Amino acid sequence: MDERIYRGYLFDFYGELLNEHQKDIYEAYITDDMSLTELAQMEGTTRQAAHDIIKRCTAKLESYENRLGLVNKFMHIKKNISEIEALTRQEPTVDTLSTIEKISKSILEEL
Amino acid sequence: MDERIYRGYLFDFYGELLNEHQKDIYEAYITDDMSLTELAQMEGTTRQAAHDIIKRCTAKLESYENRLGLVNKFMHIKKNISEIEALTRQEPTVDTLSTIEKISKSILEEL
Repeated sequence: MDERIYRGYLFDFYGELLNEHQKDIYEAYITDDMSLTELAQMEGTTRQAAHDIIKRCTAKLESYENRLGLVNKFMHIKKNISEIEALTRQEPTVDTLSTIEKISKSILEEL
Repeated sequence: MDERIYRGYLFDFYGELLNEHQKDIYEAYITDDMSLTELAQMEGTTRQAAHDIIKRCTAKLESYENRLGLVNKFMHIKKNISEIEALTRQEPTVDTLSTIEKISKSILEEL
């Protein structure tokens, strides 16, 4: 997965555990897709300092994911639901429903 | 939902954010269903002290849930997947698949 997209997921899940200042900068970096130079300008600081803040925030978010693994869990569920959604475009047969049943049961076991 | 079951979910999701000692005690309380008196015996402390630890851990776990809301999000997904699973026991018709499609799309939007 693209690194910035993955960081976006980390931020979606654990962003509220950053402090307000970190959250503002990280949000500008992820959601507004700002470059380090732009972040530095916004903060009135150097590109290097902006880089350090992003690095520190990423490490903090990754540390939460390493302990909780909820982004990974959610990605897996998302993949399975997409499979179910694709199956609904198949012929409505007993087999189709049986496959959907298996997938939904496997998700429920994981939840 | 039963209070202890809800605490179990909180522990499943955020337990790794407790320290080792808190985790051990909370796990005994939730998973092994130990009473406060039994926890106090295990820890060589008073029932009141065991009560305080459980209360502090619960507050910590609830604070994570208040900020991240992931237990609530996953519970909602679980409910929707259960609905899909129930629908797979219906007749295999276009309508059944269409309802499953709607539910799976609504989950994907939430994820």
